[in-house]
Amino acid sequence: MASWQQYLNDNQARFVDEMLAFFRIPSVSSLPEHAADVQAAGEWVAERMKQAGIENIEILPTGGHPVVYGDWLHAPGKPTILIYGHFDTQPTDPEELWKSPPFEPRIEGDRVYARGASDDKGNMLVPILAVEALLQSEGKLPLNLKFLFEGQEEIGSPQLPPFMVKHRERFACDLAVSADGGQWAEDQPELNVAARGLCALQVDVKGPDVDLHSGIYGGTVQNPIHALATILAALHDEEGHITVPSFYDQVRPVTEDDRAKIGAVPFDADGYKDRLGINALFGESGYNTYERAWARPTLEVNGIWGGFTGAGMKTVLPAEAHAKITCRLVADQDPAQIAQLVKAHIERLSPPGVTVNVTIFENAAYPYRSPSDHAGNRAAHVVLEELYGKPPYYTRTGGSVPLLTLFYRELGAQTVTFGFGLPDENIHSPNEFWRLSSFRKAQQGYCLLLQELATVQAK
Amino acid sequence: MASWQQYLNDNQARFVDEMLAFFRIPSVSSLPEHAADVQAAGEWVAERMKQAGIENIEILPTGGHPVVYGDWLHAPGKPTILIYGHFDTQPTDPEELWKSPPFEPRIEGDRVYARGASDDKGNMLVPILAVEALLQSEGKLPLNLKFLFEGQEEIGSPQLPPFMVKHRERFACDLAVSADGGQWAEDQPELNVAARGLCALQVDVKGPDVDLHSGIYGGTVQNPIHALATILAALHDEEGHITVPSFYDQVRPVTEDDRAKIGAVPFDADGYKDRLGINALFGESGYNTYERAWARPTLEVNGIWGGFTGAGMKTVLPAEAHAKITCRLVADQDPAQIAQLVKAHIERLSPPGVTVNVTIFENAAYPYRSPSDHAGNRAAHVVLEELYGKPPYYTRTGGSVPLLTLFYRELGAQTVTFGFGLPDENIHSPNEFWRLSSFRKAQQGYCLLLQELATVQAK
Repeated sequence: MASWQQYLNDNQARFVDEMLAFFRIPSVSSLPEHAADVQAAGEWVAERMKQAGIENIEILPTGGHPVVYGDWLHAPGKPTILIYGHFDTQPTDPEELWKSPPFEPRIEGDRVYARGASDDKGNMLVPILAVEALLQSEGKLPLNLKFLFEGQEEIGSPQLPPFMVKHRERFACDLAVSADGGQWAEDQPELNVAARGLCALQVDVKGPDVDLHSGIYGGTVQNPIHALATILAALHDEEGHITVPSFYDQVRPVTEDDRAKIGAVPFDADGYKDRLGINALFGESGYNTYERAWARPTLEVNGIWGGFTGAGMKTVLPAEAHAKITCRLVADQDPAQIAQLVKAHIERLSPPGVTVNVTIFENAAYPYRSPSDHAGNRAAHVVLEELYGKPPYYTRTGGSVPLLTLFYRELGAQTVTFGFGLPDENIHSPNEFWRLSSFRKAQQGYCLLLQELATVQAK
Repeated sequence: MASWQQYLNDNQARFVDEMLAFFRIPSVSSLPEHAADVQAAGEWVAERMKQAGIENIEILPTGGHPVVYGDWLHAPGKPTILIYGHFDTQPTDPEELWKSPPFEPRIEGDRVYARGASDDKGNMLVPILAVEALLQSEGKLPLNLKFLFEGQEEIGSPQLPPFMVKHRERFACDLAVSADGGQWAEDQPELNVAARGLCALQVDVKGPDVDLHSGIYGGTVQNPIHALATILAALHDEEGHITVPSFYDQVRPVTEDDRAKIGAVPFDADGYKDRLGINALFGESGYNTYERAWARPTLEVNGIWGGFTGAGMKTVLPAEAHAKITCRLVADQDPAQIAQLVKAHIERLSPPGVTVNVTIFENAAYPYRSPSDHAGNRAAHVVLEELYGKPPYYTRTGGSVPLLTLFYRELGAQTVTFGFGLPDENIHSPNEFWRLSSFRKAQQGYCLLLQELATVQAK
């Protein structure tokens, strides 16, 4: 029997062909006219899993786009790993900006252009191929595997939370590995160990019943825009700290180790400013830019409106003013609790003469934080260092990844994000591509990771 | 020869018929399709002036709707008074809310319903009738009169400023009397002695080139809405004073006499709050509501916008935020200078990481303040007290009346506002009406006023 490495080498041309066939299915989850294509992509995945030797394959209903399940559970005493990916894609508009049709994959040098190539069809196909290579070369896997491939990630996985609650037993595992992710650069791996959470609110300030003539009434009535501006201005102090009482109580401090790991990630301040078109960095004092984006919570006003907003001037004292606020949260802040704290503080700040209403939106996400020295991260670190010849950066995501907290809260499992997308691959944009070199490196990486994880103590 | 009072009595039925004929001309100045009607109203006025015995009547071009001039200048050594009014009207929409067609006057009891009845056709017709009564009963007028009746008041008199500069000599006078105004109540006269000025600005705050993902970038970049809110909140202190340096330098203090005159005007705080739908009064500390509206300058944000303002939430850190500001000014503030002070202060308040641009709009108006003991006001006081049996309230206008400052700046003349509209007469709204009792009282008032003014020293 050849080694798994030999098997990967021998079958690479076929794997590429299969990947291109997968890319041809226009599985755009946001467009109702592509619902059957999303289903077809799920069926394609199920069939390919079966060929690879994965067992108990099922296409499970969710109420929306389906989930494909499969497992291989013949390694008693070994950990059980849940592998995650998604087979749906973003839409393709504006289509005229694509150099070739988004669902007719085109190979150019090391690159294969297609919608979904990097995010996430190419990446999610890899663990299936790695399993096939291990089974074909060694007759068995070194640990127990379960698979959860979904078809609704690009629309925010609306049915996944109740689905996970319902199927908690089926997906029980020691660790999750997400094939939906990337690396820092072609020659630099990364390990993403945290994502921020989210809570969202709207502030509605009501003054007089109707817009008033600013001549007749100006100066005698509280102006709702003044009231709102005063409230919003008071939510941060001059140092950029959030003034909401108890806001930081559950925030895990940035430790010396955190500082060192974040500090190891190169940051180009001038490039950052140029790219965003700003003349200065800004943020909470005592923290640098990556610490602010990755390890500290925020309170941002996302939108504001009130009164006259047309061209020229109109002398009104407006009846109302409104603002939308989201907070990005870090472990161990609770989104519902933080939203309540912000709401209560805004209500306390409300001046006389106006009525202030604060609505908490249901959109909320828990922050996620996986210990950098967690066994899963240690295993991934070893594999990435072997693949790239250098240790990974320990990065974090300033945004929210609901999946990570879903697996943590419903299955009690941490998630290692182990994907091979790169930042320049135009995901969610025209001319998305993936690298064939990443495709091969990813297959090798997954074979190595499954072997490495087999040595980890179950939970 | 009968007395002017007898003449008024004898001709009242004819005067009412003439007024109704005047009301039938649909002289809506804002609608191009009514331009010929505005012209026709001017011609009607010129013809009626001629019948009354007014001389040198001309319809003068302005580049827009015309001005009607006339004079009677046979009282050497006596003052020259300029009488002002306008023969154009507001539009009539929403027409379906009118109980009878707006240009088919309808008399119901003491009320005559028509667009323009109170504002200002009824009022502006009166001095012509008063002149006729005086000439017919006494053969001459007790002073010199000039008339300026315009057809573009309801669109802001755009051509009047250059017109006045051009015709400064023609309109030279000792005092102006505006027939475009009203009284406090059916049984309570008022004398309006001031109007506030105006300057207007827009603040544009620019942060990153595009809206940013609030997860990836939130906390690392100055948020333009935060910057704008902080700037706007800093424009007033907690006591409601405006913080712009030198803003109050030219403001005439509210004297004990001002306080007493303003305090004599009854103010119903609960009624004011109920009518506006607010739960508390608010304004600059140290001043009451009328003082705030009439005698103190303001800085009001009229509108604000930036970022996401749709339904639900969107996690953006916005690229831009904007606000519109107007200041109401009191004598002797200069609108151009105040706008510069506000602009400079906002620029000083601008935080790092954003670019703040302040644009000064051309819309500006000087404040107007006529000394309460000015000879013109003293004369009007005497007449109003005789007509109503009680002294007038000394009121002011919180809004701007460009005409008053135009006459003051171009002719060096103060203006006595001497009109007989009442606050409930739906001016600018459906079912505008005027009172026939006001029409008669106004005729008597103008005869008395011209006699009283004849005793005043020329300037």
